[in-house]
Amino acid sequence: MFESANLDHRIDKPTYRREEAKLREALLNAQFDLKENGRFPVLILIAGVEGAGKGETVNLLNEWMDPRHIYTHAFFEPSDEERDRPPQWRFWRSLPPKGKIGVFFGAWHTMPIIQRVRGEIGEAEFAHAIGEIVRLEKMLCDEGVLLLKYWFHLSKPQQKKRLRALEKDPDTRWRVTEREWEYFKVYKKFVRVCEPFLRKTSTGEAPWIVVPGADARYRSLSFGRHLLAAMRERLDEKPVARLPDKNPPLLAASDKLNVLRAMPLDQPLTKSEYQTQLLKWQRRLNVASRDPRFKSLSVVCVFEGNDAAGKGGAIRRVTGALDARSYFNVPVAAPTEEERAQPYLWRFWRHIPRHGRFTFFDRSWYGRVLVERVEGFCKEADWMRAYSEINDFEGELLRQGGVVLKFWLAIGKDEQYKRFKAREKVAFKRFKITAEDWRNRKKWDDYELAVCDMVDRTSTALAPWTLVEANNKYHARIKVLKTLTVAVEDGLARVGKNASGKKAKKKGAK
Amino acid sequence: MFESANLDHRIDKPTYRREEAKLREALLNAQFDLKENGRFPVLILIAGVEGAGKGETVNLLNEWMDPRHIYTHAFFEPSDEERDRPPQWRFWRSLPPKGKIGVFFGAWHTMPIIQRVRGEIGEAEFAHAIGEIVRLEKMLCDEGVLLLKYWFHLSKPQQKKRLRALEKDPDTRWRVTEREWEYFKVYKKFVRVCEPFLRKTSTGEAPWIVVPGADARYRSLSFGRHLLAAMRERLDEKPVARLPDKNPPLLAASDKLNVLRAMPLDQPLTKSEYQTQLLKWQRRLNVASRDPRFKSLSVVCVFEGNDAAGKGGAIRRVTGALDARSYFNVPVAAPTEEERAQPYLWRFWRHIPRHGRFTFFDRSWYGRVLVERVEGFCKEADWMRAYSEINDFEGELLRQGGVVLKFWLAIGKDEQYKRFKAREKVAFKRFKITAEDWRNRKKWDDYELAVCDMVDRTSTALAPWTLVEANNKYHARIKVLKTLTVAVEDGLARVGKNASGKKAKKKGAK
Repeated sequence: MFESANLDHRIDKPTYRREEAKLREALLNAQFDLKENGRFPVLILIAGVEGAGKGETVNLLNEWMDPRHIYTHAFFEPSDEERDRPPQWRFWRSLPPKGKIGVFFGAWHTMPIIQRVRGEIGEAEFAHAIGEIVRLEKMLCDEGVLLLKYWFHLSKPQQKKRLRALEKDPDTRWRVTEREWEYFKVYKKFVRVCEPFLRKTSTGEAPWIVVPGADARYRSLSFGRHLLAAMRERLDEKPVARLPDKNPPLLAASDKLNVLRAMPLDQPLTKSEYQTQLLKWQRRLNVASRDPRFKSLSVVCVFEGNDAAGKGGAIRRVTGALDARSYFNVPVAAPTEEERAQPYLWRFWRHIPRHGRFTFFDRSWYGRVLVERVEGFCKEADWMRAYSEINDFEGELLRQGGVVLKFWLAIGKDEQYKRFKAREKVAFKRFKITAEDWRNRKKWDDYELAVCDMVDRTSTALAPWTLVEANNKYHARIKVLKTLTVAVEDGLARVGKNASGKKAKKKGAK
Repeated sequence: MFESANLDHRIDKPTYRREEAKLREALLNAQFDLKENGRFPVLILIAGVEGAGKGETVNLLNEWMDPRHIYTHAFFEPSDEERDRPPQWRFWRSLPPKGKIGVFFGAWHTMPIIQRVRGEIGEAEFAHAIGEIVRLEKMLCDEGVLLLKYWFHLSKPQQKKRLRALEKDPDTRWRVTEREWEYFKVYKKFVRVCEPFLRKTSTGEAPWIVVPGADARYRSLSFGRHLLAAMRERLDEKPVARLPDKNPPLLAASDKLNVLRAMPLDQPLTKSEYQTQLLKWQRRLNVASRDPRFKSLSVVCVFEGNDAAGKGGAIRRVTGALDARSYFNVPVAAPTEEERAQPYLWRFWRHIPRHGRFTFFDRSWYGRVLVERVEGFCKEADWMRAYSEINDFEGELLRQGGVVLKFWLAIGKDEQYKRFKAREKVAFKRFKITAEDWRNRKKWDDYELAVCDMVDRTSTALAPWTLVEANNKYHARIKVLKTLTVAVEDGLARVGKNASGKKAKKKGAK
């Protein structure tokens, strides 16, 4: 990766002055067009070796362009807010919206590289991390992000020279600490890790661009010109006639049977039995939520289901057991303007709870493979790739003590009709039934198919779908409450185990 | 993944008879259209649990469609030919060409699953294998293959019932051996491995389709209908107006310096010194090639370079040292009709040597990122993704004792002019110079850029590019011969080490 960058590239001052002036104007124009065009965001990753001019370049960029539309984020040690959430969360909260430029100073690549250089992870784990990065970046590109990854490079002699020069000058001496020389000592090891890393995370859509860092003028011009070319290319693209992305169809059932139709929707549970059970499970859930180990758990709970299946009622029976400070309800409607300017998972990432908290999603990211699929709000290619993107997303949530629950509340078509009619009659329930509900009902079969595909493709060992027979609301509520409580209790047990496992390990180490 | 397939799906006989007749006709039509259309191949992977009807389905397919255009390959234990080559080779040699249907009975998924079930590989290695499969399948899809992956499923009770039924019938009793019952015993473990495997290797372009296997009629109809729908969709697609795939540009040098221009092309070596060196290195290479350990090495050697840089002459000096039975020369020209009907790497895979052999490629797969890029024979998106595809390909070659060498023979523009003119004058060299050579020469700068990007993006620790200063042919030939010899000797040393390593391990095990 570094063959070209190891050469002694240089630009003389007059050339630089002349070219910089032109570049600056063109970059400002591109930035303006990006804002006007508003069709995609630019995400710039800044990475590379110590002393190769990463900071200078970011400063320069903010000087060249309108800094009001550049969002720069440097990722150092995670904050407590960040430590309490999946590792990806800090990046998601910092993504630039469409029309803007985001600069990530250090990003998802930093940890795996450092851990590998330090020998904290082996080859296989490193390969695994690389796979995850490739998937994340593919998703961002598929969502329209213009992802530009710059690696600022110095050869070993160049790095030595640079550090010496900084040390000599009283004005810059402070920039060279022992840490910099420590890094210099492991230069070879660092490059041995980074070189294959860069190659394996370079894809056609998101290649690493290695910028020679030794000569400041050369570096600045190279970076600026590349950024300009990349933005211009995307801004100026025009539609052409070409074959659509075709995804093979999924399997449609050849008979009338499917997972929803196989459900015995009518379940007996009397009101008095319900009340007894409700008290019992609410108490157990409350006890679990006040367990000291709960401080290491985050609970994400998804409610999906037919219209009028009783999602809201079920959620209220759950939250009724909880301290209001420990949970947050997210009713998912049409995305806001801010949300539409981001990849579709962004509006869910922003509500991911920290440890010791619950989030209840009334409808969720599954909208992508349900309503957006059925109504044609997104392309086939988009909802087809969403299954694995959602699995990756939930995989992230499950790290570090996450508990993920997904409920599908199912009612029969007749039961739905009865409830719709009832809602229309009762004044205080009128707001709950709209023309859209009736329209959706006409697409019953399409939704049924979409739900079955969703269950098949996103039910995982650690985050399975719970199908809830909901013709009887009492039964549905108790099943939800019970499933959730048991999952939280299991989560607590895992925390306990991990904690005692760690203790045992430490003991062993002594 | 198995929620829907675990249901007791059934089709009655009359329905099946009626539907099968319709399906059969439609499938035959689709097959005919595929042959006429000739734009893409269909590759069907058949996988799943024992007794779920995999064999029956393949037989049925050959009955339904015209078997002359279906190529079925079952992958059991590898042959000695296959064991001597990278694991992927057996699949490449069996790929169907455009216009045809290929059926792979067991494919690249089989080994990782079995090894994981047996506990021979850990979670991280399994994840690594999954990553490789996703990359391979992505490449096939990007190359236009319609990849259809069917997983035939039985629930545990269904499998038990099926095995019992087969045992009862004297005509089918032979099909149930101890092996089948062994598999049944590990059913749960098997599913625990397969379920996440299927999910993680399901992408939008190549999702696994789970076929319920218990009811033969249901299974056959589901499979046949899905295959038909998938083929029809691809056959009937029409171009639409849409934005092109845009890849960010690579970095162009901002000064006149690049890895080629930095080369001191004129290297001193007199004819007599050359002759001494030639004898010395040819002898050493010959000795290395007759080493008993060479039987565990395959050597792949790529020669690229400017027109008239002396590739042919260098190859002859190498092969002059070798037993003619131990090497094969592949001069790469325009692809043949058969080769054009396959993914671009296919025509190189077919020449990959077995252990104890050399293959010399005079031009190679790098044509994708050189001539095809410069001349616009492929789209930007295609050559941009080729860098990582080539790295993956060479990674395969490096497994199991592969040695990969890549030479770029560089001459100056003036030197090339002199050689072209000389060729035109000498009668027996006239065939070596054509109008195309003069045309290529006009694109000197474009090729230079492409070569620099190629070196940066495909030089790896185990398969680096060797840049050969070739204005002086003597120097060039000796550098090639020496580099190759040393690489082969290093390869032999690795074999020796691995062998003694294995021995040591075995000893330790006692």
